Parts: sequence; structure tokens; C-alpha cells
Amino acid sequence: MLNMRRRSLAAVATLTVLAPALPADEPLTMAGVLEAAAASDWRELDQSRALYLYLDSGVVVFELAPEFAPQHVDNVRKLVAGRYFDGLAILRSQDNYVAQWGDPAAGTAAARPLGEASHGLPPEFYRAKAGLEITPLDSTDAYAEAVGFVDGFPVGSDGERAWLAHCYGMLGAGRGNEPGSGSGAELYVVTGHAPRHLDRNVTLLGRTVHGIERLSVLPRGTAALGFYAEASEQVPVRRMRFGTELPENERIRLDLLRTDTASFERLVEARRDRREEWFLDPVGRIELCNVPLPVRAHVD
Amino acid sequence: MLNMRRRSLAAVATLTVLAPALPADEPLTMAGVLEAAAASDWRELDQSRALYLYLDSGVVVFELAPEFAPQHVDNVRKLVAGRYFDGLAILRSQDNYVAQWGDPAAGTAAARPLGEASHGLPPEFYRAKAGLEITPLDSTDAYAEAVGFVDGFPVGSDGERAWLAHCYGMLGAGRGNEPGSGSGAELYVVTGHAPRHLDRNVTLLGRTVHGIERLSVLPRGTAALGFYAEASEQVPVRRMRFGTELPENERIRLDLLRTDTASFERLVEARRDRREEWFLDPVGRIELCNVPLPVRAHVD
Repeated sequence: MLNMRRRSLAAVATLTVLAPALPADEPLTMAGVLEAAAASDWRELDQSRALYLYLDSGVVVFELAPEFAPQHVDNVRKLVAGRYFDGLAILRSQDNYVAQWGDPAAGTAAARPLGEASHGLPPEFYRAKAGLEITPLDSTDAYAEAVGFVDGFPVGSDGERAWLAHCYGMLGAGRGNEPGSGSGAELYVVTGHAPRHLDRNVTLLGRTVHGIERLSVLPRGTAALGFYAEASEQVPVRRMRFGTELPENERIRLDLLRTDTASFERLVEARRDRREEWFLDPVGRIELCNVPLPVRAHVD
Repeated sequence: MLNMRRRSLAAVATLTVLAPALPADEPLTMAGVLEAAAASDWRELDQSRALYLYLDSGVVVFELAPEFAPQHVDNVRKLVAGRYFDGLAILRSQDNYVAQWGDPAAGTAAARPLGEASHGLPPEFYRAKAGLEITPLDSTDAYAEAVGFVDGFPVGSDGERAWLAHCYGMLGAGRGNEPGSGSGAELYVVTGHAPRHLDRNVTLLGRTVHGIERLSVLPRGTAALGFYAEASEQVPVRRMRFGTELPENERIRLDLLRTDTASFERLVEARRDRREEWFLDPVGRIELCNVPLPVRAHVD
């Protein structure tokens, strides 16, 4: 991996639909598993829960998780419908932590009205495990009794509860000290080592599926907590839209590997036991936030 | 943490040397622990193992770990003494993974000679646990039987062995497929979620103590593995120097919190049990790479 002359593992977007099965003697690798995956192992990104963030540098796309945060997802729908986000700004980029956007005037008399949306929602920090199909991950986790995946989202759980985990790229709703002070009007994305101590303390409502590098390379703010010290440093948010609002030719069509498939299980094993020639110690272990959640350009 | 109106936790650089002890009723927080730390809980960065990387955007400083990688540290000394790195380039910036620099012509007839330095060193992927004073961290780790800290470095261990852990900001020596192909002539820094599967597979030789944001915000390369597709995208490395080679006024003097102190132990507890008002669930758990390793501007 840390070698200039390795073959690319990044050819995901060019895979054919009906790739050959892995030869029995082929080492199990991510590339091999994805090449061998059936078309039905992928699902197309649902544009009705694909949230687009437009920056001058390009677009970031999130897949929302209404199963975990129905009220926050619904409130964000109202905010987007009211064009709340259009013309706001990225206010914060803290190294190894998060990028965050919202209304620079929030909390002042000049704050932008939220329209039909709520100013504060009941916490959706976790939900009942009942009713969820969790694909378990065999891993020793520092923060949760058990971990796994639900519909492509990393999840922690204990006896009765399940919650989305703060892995790289997860999308959350900032809040104040009151549990019900989050609304989705201020959003953040994890851009560093998974801050799993935030799990069950704040509502996560989705994950990044395209363009996270637009957020992760943002200049770091120099004020406390990575806020930009000057308004002039803030990065304009041009607009936010749902995919279904966009003309067909502006939609970014993606396929996501289903996490309830044998292909995903093989992928996890390929990443747990690293058989690529470069690895001398095959590791034999894997942590929740190091499991890749493959995304490719949509294949018709 | 994810709230615009919190007090700053980032005033580390302005602490006084003899801060008052924490009032008994004060919640244990990182800021509180650091304010209460004695002058002797800090050690000044040793300029003889402080490695400076000069980019046009500013300087990055690494503290090297000769206890773990004596031969790689020694080889890097020879490379720096021979001015090997001056005028090379950052070749790779892979999102959520690493930034890496070296000779764009490596492996070709135009490769820059290494001078007195070796082209390949025996692996220093781990070492004997004997002879190390490991401050243990009470944590369930996905990748190691036990984890802790040695002189400010995050460490994993098993029965007889100990190794530096691939946390955010760690500095490593790239290698090819042969275990002895690393030399320190190609270096990388972790700029994403800890890729702990690399532990014991490659030599780590230090950690970033200043300026990591110069590396973490670099544009991501679009070629395989985050390599820059065009030479024009590569980011110039102007020079690398050890602190002891620099005029006094160009040295960046830093204090690092000692990890074998009661203050560090209290810091870990403050980060394990989050008592800040914002936290509703105090967590009660912590993972190796989420333990802060405080650095402040040197206090005379």
C-alpha cells in the first residue's frame, strides 16, 4: 500500500456487470471480491434520499439514513425545500475531526428563519435494535458491545439499542448542550480519525458517498474548535438539493455494495486477512471504521 | 464539541507553568488537567530528534522514535545530512489514508543517489517489549492484545513484542514488497482514520508534533492510491533538517506532555469519562488513537 509501484486497486468504477467468479487459487483481495460480485450485490443510490451539497470546488453527496434518524431526515427535507442552506457557509474545519456548515448568523437577530422546519428535535442518538437487520462484524470494538452494518451504514449496539457509528465520512446534526437542540440546520461530517466518543451523544443521519475530499481538504480554521476566525475564510455553501429535485443529467448515479451479501462478507474477510503480496503479517483483525463500503459509478 | 458556542478547549499554548491544582468540584476536563499539570509533567522537544519538513505552505515537525526504529532514524539522519530530500516532492495524498513524499524519479536511472545512506534496511516493524516502560491504556483494542504509550508514542503489544501504532499523524518509511526494501528515503504520514492493519507490516519512526494540517489538506491525487497523476501536481519539498542544524531563532520549541505522569493518567480518564456539559452519555471508553498527546509552545 505504501509503495509507489503497486497495481491499482481503484478500478471499481470500470467493472463490468457480470464479472467472472474468482479463480480458486486467486488471493482474496478487495479488487478480486468486487470483480466477482454479482450485479444483484449492488444497489443503486436512491436519489430521494441522496442529499447534494454544492461547493465552488464541486459537489458532495450524502446518503441519508431515515431508519436511524427519521425526524432529522424529515427536517432536513423541509430545510432543503425552503432553500434554507443556499448561501450559507462552512464555518468550521477542525483538523482530524469535522467540517461543519450552517448559518453564520445563527443565534443572532439576523439568523435565517427555518421556515417550515423545526428549531429543535427530540434526540435520535440511538434507536431500538428490534426491527433492524444487522450484519454483524466479528471485531473487538473499543466503544460498543457489538458492531456491524445496516444497509451500508456502520452501526454499534448493546442489549436493546443500535446507533450509527462516527466513522470517517459520517454526517451528523450539530447541537447545543440541550439534547433537543439539534435540528439539522447545522450539519457536520467526520473528516478525521473516528470520534466514536460522540456515538449516542449526537444524531447521525447519513454518510458521504461521493466527494468527501471536497470537505477533507478544506483549510483548517484557526479559531477555537477549528472555526474560521474571519468571515472571509468561510467557504460558501451554494445550495443543497435532493437528487430527485435535479434534472436527470445532473444526478450522480452510484451503486453501493449491499452489506447483507456474501460478497460483502468476503470483502470483510479479504480486509481482515490481508493476502496481498505486500502484507507480511496478514493482520487477522479488522475494526468497524476500517471496513470499506464500496461505491462505484452506476452500471446500467 | 459540535456546537458553535462552546468555550475554547484550545488554549494549551498560553498556559502558565505553575497552574493551580484543580478544585475538587471542577469537572475533570482536558483543559482542567492541562492547567493543573506541573512544569515537570512536560518535556521539551529534543531538537536532535526533531525532524523539520519545509513546504511552501509552512513547516511540519516530527519527533523521531529511535527506541523503535534506530536504523531508520539513523538512515534518515544520513539522508538529511546529504541533503537528499531537498527539492524532492510530495507524490501522493490519498484521502483518509496517507501523504507520502520522496524522489519522483525513484526506481529509474535518474533516481537521486542516497549518498552515505542505505538503500534498504532490516525491518523495524516491532521490537522486544523488554526494556520498554509502557504506560498501559485500559482499552479494548481491535488490533493488539494490549496498548499503551512509550515516551509519547502510541504502542501496541503482544506477548514479547511492542510496536508503534498507526494513529493519525504517525510517520512511516514506505517500502516495496520485500521486507528489507524500506530505507526512509520515502516517507509517509497518516492523514486519516488509523490504518492499524499496517502495524507490524511497515516501519514507523516518529510522529507529527507540529503542522500536520500542512499535509492533511493537500489536494488528493487522482491516480491510483492517491498518487498525483501529473508531475505538475506534486508538491515541492523544499528541504528537511534536524532542529539542531537550525539557527536558534528558526527552531520551533515545543513542550510535550509526558505520558508516564499522573497528569497524563488524569487526561486519559478525562477523555474516557466525558464530563463536559455537552456530553449526555459520558462514554466510559476510549481507544488508543483517540487519546490526545498534548503539545504546547515551549514555556521557559
